[in-house]
Amino acid sequence: MKTLTKEIWLNAPTRRAIISIHNEVERLVDESGVCDGIVLVNAMHITASVFINDNESGLHSDYELWLEKLAPEKPHSQYAHNGYEDNADAHMKRQIMGREVVVAITDGKLHLGPWEHIFYYEFDGMRKKRLLVKIIGE
Amino acid sequence: MKTLTKEIWLNAPTRRAIISIHNEVERLVDESGVCDGIVLVNAMHITASVFINDNESGLHSDYELWLEKLAPEKPHSQYAHNGYEDNADAHMKRQIMGREVVVAITDGKLHLGPWEHIFYYEFDGMRKKRLLVKIIGE
Amino acid sequence: MKTLTKEIWLNAPTRRAIISIHNEVERLVDESGVCDGIVLVNAMHITASVFINDNESGLHSDYELWLEKLAPEKPHSQYAHNGYEDNADAHMKRQIMGREVVVAITDGKLHLGPWEHIFYYEFDGMRKKRLLVKIIGE
Repeated sequence: MKTLTKEIWLNAPTRRAIISIHNEVERLVDESGVCDGIVLVNAMHITASVFINDNESGLHSDYELWLEKLAPEKPHSQYAHNGYEDNADAHMKRQIMGREVVVAITDGKLHLGPWEHIFYYEFDGMRKKRLLVKIIGE
Repeated sequence: MKTLTKEIWLNAPTRRAIISIHNEVERLVDESGVCDGIVLVNAMHITASVFINDNESGLHSDYELWLEKLAPEKPHSQYAHNGYEDNADAHMKRQIMGREVVVAITDGKLHLGPWEHIFYYEFDGMRKKRLLVKIIGE
Repeated sequence: MKTLTKEIWLNAPTRRAIISIHNEVERLVDESGVCDGIVLVNAMHITASVFINDNESGLHSDYELWLEKLAPEKPHSQYAHNGYEDNADAHMKRQIMGREVVVAITDGKLHLGPWEHIFYYEFDGMRKKRLLVKIIGE
């Protein structure tokens, strides 16, 4: 079995941001030398998501409005989280968008459909945070 | 390590449809000869889901109403997606229901609870789309 | 390849409950002897979730209110599920919180961020139910 483990640091300049990590995951799959296997990509923080969807800015702004409707940030006082934290909404948004994706590797490449694109979704940014790429296979 | 990789084509006759893929995944696990491992099953399109839940038509119609409430299809004009697309709701519904499932294989069989059943959920059908089954183990 | 497979029985004393399974998963990773690989943790019942988020009671009560808003339990008559069942909401809440998590194992340990904590979320308790831990790697 071959494996590759890589932590990636990010620092989103805004509270919320959708950041493509597609090329970096693709590069790590190449580097791993794994021909047949899987790659796990997950946020290491609990106020962020990794998800696969369209690389299209209109849809990304739709997500922003939609998540804000389902789990509004304000007023912060509506949430009990720790009695004082302002990011309970971020813990909720991350559950809808998901913590992780698992993607097949076939013939040494990410085995994806035509429009699948891997993103990191930051819900409580403006600080350094990590995601994890773990590849196993042979 | 043994692996099996299979793309499955589907063509839902309606915009939205819940389609059982359980028997086909079960068959592929048999075919793989994997005794101990995992199977990843994922939609290859970003307006569809793979999920595990009850094989019961009442619940499926409940899902339909519920998802339409959380992420309504119409009016299409409420969404910015590409300025003209009519399927932004499908990209949202798929995030709630999920892109993929990972299921354990033990003693050569899907290791599932009594009511777990694997489904494909189409949110933007009436065209040919694919899902992926990837099995790894030994 | 090394593997470990373990079913864990739980019996939540209330309809809904968030139960830490973190230490038990950690213990099983130790027991497996896997140094590099992944662990899949999933509910085996379709009215429960396994998820990773904060070990903080304020946030847990926020989740409770939030999920009840997105997928209200009552009135039971609003749902078609089987014509008589009272747990359709549980099948919905579980889709938002997710069926499973996949976590990397590196150097023989769960490879998690600082606040990641593994929980079981029961949405229809007061009876014996199972979750599954499946470890593969080497």
